[in-house]
Amino acid sequence: MKEKRTLMLPGPTPIPKQARLAGAEEIIGHREPECEDLLKEVVDGLKYVFQTTNDVLVLTCSGTGGLEASIANTLSAGDKVLSLCTGAFGERYATIAERYGVDVERINFEWGKAVDVNKVRERLEEDKNNEIKAILMTHNETSTGVVNDPQPIGELADEHDVLLLADAVSSLAGVELKVDEWGVDVAVTSSQKALMSPPGVCLVSVSSKALDAGQEADLPSFYWSFQRAKERYDRNFQTPSTPAIAILYSLRESLRQMKEEGLQEVFNRHQIVTKAIRKAAEAIGLELLVDDEIASTTVTAIQVPDEVEYSTLRQNMKEKYNVYITGSKGELKGKVFRIGHLGNVSRSDILSTISALEMVLKQEGFELKLGVGLEAAQKVFYEEESR
Amino acid sequence: MKEKRTLMLPGPTPIPKQARLAGAEEIIGHREPECEDLLKEVVDGLKYVFQTTNDVLVLTCSGTGGLEASIANTLSAGDKVLSLCTGAFGERYATIAERYGVDVERINFEWGKAVDVNKVRERLEEDKNNEIKAILMTHNETSTGVVNDPQPIGELADEHDVLLLADAVSSLAGVELKVDEWGVDVAVTSSQKALMSPPGVCLVSVSSKALDAGQEADLPSFYWSFQRAKERYDRNFQTPSTPAIAILYSLRESLRQMKEEGLQEVFNRHQIVTKAIRKAAEAIGLELLVDDEIASTTVTAIQVPDEVEYSTLRQNMKEKYNVYITGSKGELKGKVFRIGHLGNVSRSDILSTISALEMVLKQEGFELKLGVGLEAAQKVFYEEESR
Repeated sequence: MKEKRTLMLPGPTPIPKQARLAGAEEIIGHREPECEDLLKEVVDGLKYVFQTTNDVLVLTCSGTGGLEASIANTLSAGDKVLSLCTGAFGERYATIAERYGVDVERINFEWGKAVDVNKVRERLEEDKNNEIKAILMTHNETSTGVVNDPQPIGELADEHDVLLLADAVSSLAGVELKVDEWGVDVAVTSSQKALMSPPGVCLVSVSSKALDAGQEADLPSFYWSFQRAKERYDRNFQTPSTPAIAILYSLRESLRQMKEEGLQEVFNRHQIVTKAIRKAAEAIGLELLVDDEIASTTVTAIQVPDEVEYSTLRQNMKEKYNVYITGSKGELKGKVFRIGHLGNVSRSDILSTISALEMVLKQEGFELKLGVGLEAAQKVFYEEESR
Repeated sequence: MKEKRTLMLPGPTPIPKQARLAGAEEIIGHREPECEDLLKEVVDGLKYVFQTTNDVLVLTCSGTGGLEASIANTLSAGDKVLSLCTGAFGERYATIAERYGVDVERINFEWGKAVDVNKVRERLEEDKNNEIKAILMTHNETSTGVVNDPQPIGELADEHDVLLLADAVSSLAGVELKVDEWGVDVAVTSSQKALMSPPGVCLVSVSSKALDAGQEADLPSFYWSFQRAKERYDRNFQTPSTPAIAILYSLRESLRQMKEEGLQEVFNRHQIVTKAIRKAAEAIGLELLVDDEIASTTVTAIQVPDEVEYSTLRQNMKEKYNVYITGSKGELKGKVFRIGHLGNVSRSDILSTISALEMVLKQEGFELKLGVGLEAAQKVFYEEESR
């Protein structure tokens, strides 16, 4: 018997069975009232998760498409933006803006560290002529497992009257994001991360400030024009193009589950799982890339020990135990491995992953007492339950 | 008991049960070999349907996104293109190009008629300095139910060394399209039409001529860059961003079914169904918008008779018989109704539709002998089977 698949990637993530089955429902017409009801329930659920009263647009594309949409809808060629880069996805956001002819100024931070707010403040204070139109930030930098706090950046954005555009692809619903309270003008996420749905749909909360900026912006965009989407919502709660109806069926079901569980409980569950993985890694004798205070609750990066090759670790965990982990990108390639633990990840998934990790490490010559990681993780679960 | 839903829209279309269930499979990692196998089988199946050896790119977006990608990847701002407009979707293709700053020259044809190739030839012959870079055409104009023949346009494009970009969204797999033989440089279709899958994926065949043109083109595009997609195919048969895996599961199953049925048989089935609907409409005493020679085999537009309001017809067919038809756009709004008959549409769907149509027409005061349409359709089925 083959072990069941344990998908511990930072996306796509495992989908609850009811959400997968919901996606198999018969397709309906996208101009029918029943599709408007579907979209409305999805958007209401998303507003709850984004903690916003902004419009949340449903675009049919991956997260990258949503990031591109956030640029194309709010900026003009030649506009100056600050891009806060803490890893590969910060880098990607900057690259997309450059592709559109935006004048991108990167502030680079060491991979594995968070944005230093002081540097952002200094740069904005230097900008006497208000040339900077927007700040691009990565809420949860998936390549390193670092959370950047949007709250102080949102305050600075407000103070200096610039837009705050945030990549929340691997954070939303796994790391708290208070869109309204923190002043995030555009936040982009996608269906296949902590929202526990199949890939293919991108969700974008858009503030009125961002919509206003779009009136003056001249970058080309038709398919994912925020304005077209907004007009269609206001008219009859439809989307300009045919939406990915089957994915919306799944997303509706996942959002229902999250609402029933309660958003704070969802975050709490992510925190417990994260703590279990971090404690287990330490007990095994592995080194975490990221300090506790800035550690993501959706993905954890762990240094590959000298005794083991990354590719062997990954391959053996997959082939022997059907546990899927991944590596990192750029300067961290081959040096860290990452465990995704967002969305529909259970305690048993964590235990399977730690067990497989221990076994492969030991087989490859890394010295450890089998079970130390399991014990540490279980202890976290036990203590949390005893509270 | 409520009647079963009969979805007779020109998309989204009903999905075979096995394809719907396939979409409920567990999600896999998009950088895993099993996802490469999935993508490869889908692309091979698509090459069979597109009748091409070109790369067929799989983009996560709706058909409109694919049309936008075809512009953004092959043209530069200010480039001159000819847009052959025979209805609302030809108009939309032109609008997208304009949004990107392309210099669009429309050749408009009466709605309900096909492209007059002589007009295109004349215009290209006038273009002594080869200013025209591309021709945009709609293979199957969904708003009117007209098929425009790409073959003579492809010959002209070849002769004058311009690109031929074709909207094949509502045609591919329902109307024959010989991409290679007819010289179509970019052909765009989407998953929720004759490919019998959920909406959310766009399929684009791209010739080497189009890829070459892309090297010089300067319009911005990152998410759906053909070049990035092509590089990723060549490297390891993946997509640059996470693809819509669940939709690809469904699409793989639908393509398997089409391969088993045989492409010519698929077209043949569409022709029979079309003939049945057209004969039924005539027998009922209704007027078809489009002549036989240019009639689409995926959607049929029928004049709304004077005795009936379009909205009443549509609403009653839906509410009383659970049969979904639709209207048209622009100048045809309220004047014609359209029946989609592409993909997974069976003879029993056609009979249910004709029966509902007859009943509602009669209830609304249109004079007809009940059953005349059914009889005409059945006769088509009977004769085809007796061949």
